[in-house]
Amino acid sequence: MDKWDVIIVGAGSAGLAAGIYTVRSGLKTLVLDEKLAGGEIADAPIIVNYPGFVEVSGRDLAEKMANHARKLGVNIHDLEAVTKLDLSSETKKVTTPVAEYEAKTVILATGSHYKEACVKGEKEFRGRGVSYCGVCDGPFFKGKKVLVMGGGNSACITSLYLSGIASQVLVSHRRNAFRAEESLVKDLKSKPNVNLLLDTELQEIKGDKKVQAVSLIDKAAGKLFEVSVDAVFVQIGEAPNSQLAVNSGVHVDERGYIKIDMHQRTNLQGVFSAGDVTNHPVKQVGTAVGQGITAALEAYAFIRQPYYRK
Amino acid sequence: MDKWDVIIVGAGSAGLAAGIYTVRSGLKTLVLDEKLAGGEIADAPIIVNYPGFVEVSGRDLAEKMANHARKLGVNIHDLEAVTKLDLSSETKKVTTPVAEYEAKTVILATGSHYKEACVKGEKEFRGRGVSYCGVCDGPFFKGKKVLVMGGGNSACITSLYLSGIASQVLVSHRRNAFRAEESLVKDLKSKPNVNLLLDTELQEIKGDKKVQAVSLIDKAAGKLFEVSVDAVFVQIGEAPNSQLAVNSGVHVDERGYIKIDMHQRTNLQGVFSAGDVTNHPVKQVGTAVGQGITAALEAYAFIRQPYYRK
Repeated sequence: MDKWDVIIVGAGSAGLAAGIYTVRSGLKTLVLDEKLAGGEIADAPIIVNYPGFVEVSGRDLAEKMANHARKLGVNIHDLEAVTKLDLSSETKKVTTPVAEYEAKTVILATGSHYKEACVKGEKEFRGRGVSYCGVCDGPFFKGKKVLVMGGGNSACITSLYLSGIASQVLVSHRRNAFRAEESLVKDLKSKPNVNLLLDTELQEIKGDKKVQAVSLIDKAAGKLFEVSVDAVFVQIGEAPNSQLAVNSGVHVDERGYIKIDMHQRTNLQGVFSAGDVTNHPVKQVGTAVGQGITAALEAYAFIRQPYYRK
Repeated sequence: MDKWDVIIVGAGSAGLAAGIYTVRSGLKTLVLDEKLAGGEIADAPIIVNYPGFVEVSGRDLAEKMANHARKLGVNIHDLEAVTKLDLSSETKKVTTPVAEYEAKTVILATGSHYKEACVKGEKEFRGRGVSYCGVCDGPFFKGKKVLVMGGGNSACITSLYLSGIASQVLVSHRRNAFRAEESLVKDLKSKPNVNLLLDTELQEIKGDKKVQAVSLIDKAAGKLFEVSVDAVFVQIGEAPNSQLAVNSGVHVDERGYIKIDMHQRTNLQGVFSAGDVTNHPVKQVGTAVGQGITAALEAYAFIRQPYYRK
């Protein structure tokens, strides 16, 4: 059995920040991720709100963080998915398809994932015009007409990004106001090739072999209308990747986010959580980093000096 | 009267991160600091644990953060000390020697300060072997010999932390018994690479370009002796800069740190706090940034009350 002081599940901003701190504290640290290290930020075209970097691409920042952690001695096994967690005993067991690991503490930093629109045609055309990631798929639609569905920060950021690539960007949002940062909405309104469709619900994604059109409902008028588009970017939010945690007895809130306290502790002894998978009210790179650091130092305290903590 | 949406008191990592987010959220933002913008990190010679920067000088990172905030439109008045806060009404009043400001919300990010030993060589070698933070600087002395000065909980915790990194840890305390928790002292005594020097007073820190030795007085024998060390960690206390907040009715814990919840809210409506001045368990750049971001978005929600918040 492969033994560790800390196993961190998830190599996004929170998990990498945690690894940087546990390794610097002298703890033998393993980070596991089913995908490549770097996490969800790698999908962001531009990040301008991680303090210290005026402007950086998500992929760049993700790589910087992963390299930072590796350089300090964090063992990162990416492309190795955790399939089972046994967190109830003092020694935690973490199972993947290739190994079974033991750890004194576990930090859950599994992040969240994009929500699906659940409309007709969405699954059928996924990868053939339906996308959840502007930076990944936007460039395939250079000079084309695209629709972004959603009204939050990610919808606005994606729309701004696509406005520099596509000939026209339609943004459909079912409410009559955006819930994004004002500066983003202002920016969006200033783009001549962006059209905002408020109070409008996406009904169906249509096409033959690939996306060709969408049906939308104008909610105020109660009218259905069709617009030809080449792609649909669904940007309606995220849900936590907490199923494994739930299965192993970790408490979550009503939306499935892992419940933590100010020390990033879960309800289970020696099990901490950080980043977008938690019920912390803010989901940003900078807050994921802060939470990861706290979880790391609390895991350290739990292992080495448990008595001075109440 | 000069009117603002948000006034942030303190231009360290927490205050600057908060400003970046309030300005991007469309809030008119003023940051006030009695010193130069950048905060305490500016004193750190090297920072290797702010995720994304493998190695950066404290001054560099402080400047990057301040420039980042300025570039986005944050108004920073540095060298302008807040002398009075009136936080009880809906409109908050912030007084400095040159103006009286009004704001809808206030974020307190005034940080904390380390107590200095006030011995010869301390100021001269600060950042060149003299440190006040084990977690920040301990890893620079891997396999080296270090001295910790102090006899309370923080001295013992720092010594234990360093015992996992340094080859040898000397702990000098001017009294003949520690005033730390017994279990901490017991643990410290069990470490083979820790030597306790009780009844011993630090007299001088010596070196050429960096710390090389310390002079100590054995108080019982009345003898001066010298020991070669590579670093001195002064651990005789840290205190929050919370007096102004206390005077204006903000609740603090028994050590004077501002009490916050997971939303960075204080007991007063519209008053938030972030960073080292709070009772959050961890005091690091990355956690200050995370807290600042949270305080900013919560201040935004407080002012604009968008429909997606409860």
